[in-house]
Amino acid sequence: MKNKIQVCLIIGSADIPKAKDINFFVKRKNDLVIIAADGGLKNASKLKLIPHFLIGDFDSVSPHQLKQLPSETKIVKFSGQEDTDIEKSIKYAQSKGCKEFFITGVLGKRIEHTIGNISILHKYTNKHTKIRIIGKYSLLEVINSSYKFRTHPGEKISFFSFNKETRIITNGLKYPLNDESLFFGERESISNETTGEMASLEIRSGELLLIRDLKTITANG
Amino acid sequence: MKNKIQVCLIIGSADIPKAKDINFFVKRKNDLVIIAADGGLKNASKLKLIPHFLIGDFDSVSPHQLKQLPSETKIVKFSGQEDTDIEKSIKYAQSKGCKEFFITGVLGKRIEHTIGNISILHKYTNKHTKIRIIGKYSLLEVINSSYKFRTHPGEKISFFSFNKETRIITNGLKYPLNDESLFFGERESISNETTGEMASLEIRSGELLLIRDLKTITANG
Repeated sequence: MKNKIQVCLIIGSADIPKAKDINFFVKRKNDLVIIAADGGLKNASKLKLIPHFLIGDFDSVSPHQLKQLPSETKIVKFSGQEDTDIEKSIKYAQSKGCKEFFITGVLGKRIEHTIGNISILHKYTNKHTKIRIIGKYSLLEVINSSYKFRTHPGEKISFFSFNKETRIITNGLKYPLNDESLFFGERESISNETTGEMASLEIRSGELLLIRDLKTITANG
Repeated sequence: MKNKIQVCLIIGSADIPKAKDINFFVKRKNDLVIIAADGGLKNASKLKLIPHFLIGDFDSVSPHQLKQLPSETKIVKFSGQEDTDIEKSIKYAQSKGCKEFFITGVLGKRIEHTIGNISILHKYTNKHTKIRIIGKYSLLEVINSSYKFRTHPGEKISFFSFNKETRIITNGLKYPLNDESLFFGERESISNETTGEMASLEIRSGELLLIRDLKTITANG
């Protein structure tokens, strides 16, 4: 176990995609560190992944589960109420130098946790830290500059802004935006569609929550 | 079928709570009108509710389902791409004078639709229109003034703001806020808890997305 963490997969206790979808993003990363965030231990086992760390206050882990832990898994107990188990996991990995995160098992169960975890994406993404949430059907990311991507025509793509200043130009989408503003509760772009093999978003100011279709991404190899 | 609609229940195709939870909110409302939003028809049938209207572009309803429709259900076809089926349903009911909405089956499946439907809550709530989303575990509402409620001690309550100007004072919560600001991606209150039989939120400016625990509300009668 290296002291420096490069890439980190954090597993929460909500909905997860198929193991092959997770593997698509992390399989070639030899320096990957896996963290089960509290009750996410069960999802790690479903994904047949052995976590390097189990982090949380263990209010969702039974003594039996703790006993069954593989010897490779190090227990890091945090009992502060301020941060969620996902935030505790991010902060722990950051303290070891980690700058790239994949987070799964954080969407779809209780809506307040789902929104809270999307809030975390906004809170911790910055020019030094890249975070992607792998949902059951989607890949979520906060972007604030140019984003160009390979796709298959017809990929469903959605974006939301929680920042009044966000302005965006799109290329290669069925419903184009040309230096237009988006703001939550006023305007959004849901189930937009790519039209060719490439598409791009250019953020003129502010930032966007980008939601792409997982099936299209993993099919693109 | 009255021409004027007072209260409307809109049913979408995502996760729904138990029928008894829906009934808690709508059972005494004789003037209730039920709208199935496209694929929500299936959820209406699960809830043993016969919709007065089926609204949408019917991309999620099979010809077989249309044939099986009860004769009480009026079909209203909208094919505009701009609005989602939920928005089409709200606008239709509003055109008939409806001012109070319950919406269910709009959270938990695809994350872009979940966020989009919470965005709708922000877009359509105003001093003339009251909207509540009944989720699987939660009741969601946008509030912008005082909100006082009966509860059981220990009810989990969460709130988020997508407005930089929101300031809030709470009473009767375990983690109190005293004229403090909240903003998505900066600060939120997740799984706060009530401490007594009554609690209140006072919004000094802006507005809040309030998420209460469905089980506590329905247990309170």
